Amino acid sequence: MTHTAEFKILSHQMTLLLEVGQAINSVLDLDKLLELIAVKATSLLEAERCTIFVVDRDEQVLWTQTAVGEARFEIPLSTGIAGAVADTGSIINVKNAYDDPRFNQDVDRRTGFLTSSLLAGPMYNQGGEIIGVCQLLNSRNGCFVHTDEKLLAALSGFVGNALEKAQLYEQLKSTFLSVLEVLAATVDAKHPYTAGHTDRVSEYSCGIARMMGLPDDDVEQLKVAAYLHDYGKIGIRDAVLTKPDRLTNEEYTEMKSHVVKTQEILSRMRFSKQHRLVPAIAGAHHERWDGKGYPNGLSGEDIPLGARIMAIGDVFDALTSDRDYRTAMPYADALELLRADVGSSFDPRVFPYFEAYYQKRFVDGGK
Amino acid sequence: MTHTAEFKILSHQMTLLLEVGQAINSVLDLDKLLELIAVKATSLLEAERCTIFVVDRDEQVLWTQTAVGEARFEIPLSTGIAGAVADTGSIINVKNAYDDPRFNQDVDRRTGFLTSSLLAGPMYNQGGEIIGVCQLLNSRNGCFVHTDEKLLAALSGFVGNALEKAQLYEQLKSTFLSVLEVLAATVDAKHPYTAGHTDRVSEYSCGIARMMGLPDDDVEQLKVAAYLHDYGKIGIRDAVLTKPDRLTNEEYTEMKSHVVKTQEILSRMRFSKQHRLVPAIAGAHHERWDGKGYPNGLSGEDIPLGARIMAIGDVFDALTSDRDYRTAMPYADALELLRADVGSSFDPRVFPYFEAYYQKRFVDGGK
Repeated sequence: MTHTAEFKILSHQMTLLLEVGQAINSVLDLDKLLELIAVKATSLLEAERCTIFVVDRDEQVLWTQTAVGEARFEIPLSTGIAGAVADTGSIINVKNAYDDPRFNQDVDRRTGFLTSSLLAGPMYNQGGEIIGVCQLLNSRNGCFVHTDEKLLAALSGFVGNALEKAQLYEQLKSTFLSVLEVLAATVDAKHPYTAGHTDRVSEYSCGIARMMGLPDDDVEQLKVAAYLHDYGKIGIRDAVLTKPDRLTNEEYTEMKSHVVKTQEILSRMRFSKQHRLVPAIAGAHHERWDGKGYPNGLSGEDIPLGARIMAIGDVFDALTSDRDYRTAMPYADALELLRADVGSSFDPRVFPYFEAYYQKRFVDGGK
Repeated sequence: MTHTAEFKILSHQMTLLLEVGQAINSVLDLDKLLELIAVKATSLLEAERCTIFVVDRDEQVLWTQTAVGEARFEIPLSTGIAGAVADTGSIINVKNAYDDPRFNQDVDRRTGFLTSSLLAGPMYNQGGEIIGVCQLLNSRNGCFVHTDEKLLAALSGFVGNALEKAQLYEQLKSTFLSVLEVLAATVDAKHPYTAGHTDRVSEYSCGIARMMGLPDDDVEQLKVAAYLHDYGKIGIRDAVLTKPDRLTNEEYTEMKSHVVKTQEILSRMRFSKQHRLVPAIAGAHHERWDGKGYPNGLSGEDIPLGARIMAIGDVFDALTSDRDYRTAMPYADALELLRADVGSSFDPRVFPYFEAYYQKRFVDGGK
């Protein structure tokens, strides 16, 4: 090969690599990132398939995602070719995987795929720990060559960094939601009859939102709002909050004030763009479509969409849970009762998605 | 220039760019990222200086950080050369900044730096919005050429993506801490005499930790633990929590049980690696160095460092705040009282850092 031709190829590969690096580093969502890396690596290294394994040292496994949002596929940490890469940090390049005793033939058997050539290399985090393995199958050129190994090593620099950041972000998000969930649940727990209420309202609301096809970020914002929607109850006296009998009018007024207290508490929090509607959603879950709700008598689309969704989940859970003065209503009866309030309490355009969610969660899911 | 030589330069620049891209994408901390980008861009584009401006559309400003951790320097959104880049998205390349009427000479006047050539280009997020401006001053080759503009454009791809991710991470962290702070404060607020306690314990503890030179991540973990350290009080009856008189022995036992309740609540949260010590720290803030504390009678270094730090901040705030049965003690008297308990209640190696923090916060700071 001439000198010029070599530089031409090198510069072409570097341009590709730069593009791939930029693309990979633009995604923070872990699932989507793993998929994007696999797609980009497949095309850059001219392979038929690519699997990204993530190292989980706590659980002592390597895991991979077959598709965005689907369940993880796990293997013990030191098994197979990917396990050997994770252990040693060396690149493994074999012409025929079946000749390598470390190769696990189970996956081929299960998927019907026939692996021939295989190239696998480690991905490092900033601390120099191996955090993942990038494994390419079946080079379109017969087998993987030395240049492919170099390209994989260069790619792994971007991939490792992007992966570590996505993991940090996901971990922080998961810690945030978990802490919020537990703190919110402690307020429910002050009264035995509301234990689990916040969790269920969150589950139902996010279920409806997903049924409506709302973006992931909106669903997460709704989840945060749901966790916080009854937090104002912390400002209600024990004597009212845990009273076993029906409340007097005066006590009921104090009880209703929890929404205003929720709004007061939320207004002191600094929510960033992604969560900016949390106070508005959480504070409006007792508003009604016809304007007869509280605390502000908002109506129709002046009520944030998230609050119109949550209103359904909130009432549905209240009806289907035990109270001191009545036992829980069967799910189907509660659905009937809610239906009667569509157009008055509930948004007629949101309600069909609750019906669809109900069907999936309580009818089909229960079979 | 021969074809080969051109490819050689191109390939050299691309190699540099790849390295810079990898380095930039390995940092998630916004301050450190901005500094790293400036350093890398200065060297890659052979300039004397580089400023990274971040676009804040809510506040209608461009801001930049002169050094890690220092205050931000802000300019109105559409002013100066950086403002013009942020408005139009075009690269601006001028041989002599002083010939351009948009150039703001104030900064040179203030810093004593003399700007000659200037190259500024936009940085985009995934949505195609301009989120920042990269501005280089004084090319070491006299002026910036067309190749520099192309290199800046290529670099901006990485930089914009890295910047957006760092912002998302920072926003989530700030939302998390803010929500936690407010929720924790609501528990304090149940009793007028403990209002603000959690905030102050968090401030004092983080102050001591910073004085000790603990890493940022450890300080943040301590802050989360401080916000949660008294949360178990949510499980104490109003009658005990808000009793205006001295507590009976029985009531005092119930009050002390808040640490166990804190531990119970925290044990239900899923903390990731970065926050894994939060339950241990928050649950041990009433342990004593000599082993005579509660709930587990831990002693010495068996008590997590964060808890040994927080124990000092917690008692110091209790002494210097009003209580029903006594008024707040002057800061200096409280310090004396704490000193008497070094080696019994408090870790003798941590205490000097509290003394240093006290000096800075209450003596020097008060002047």
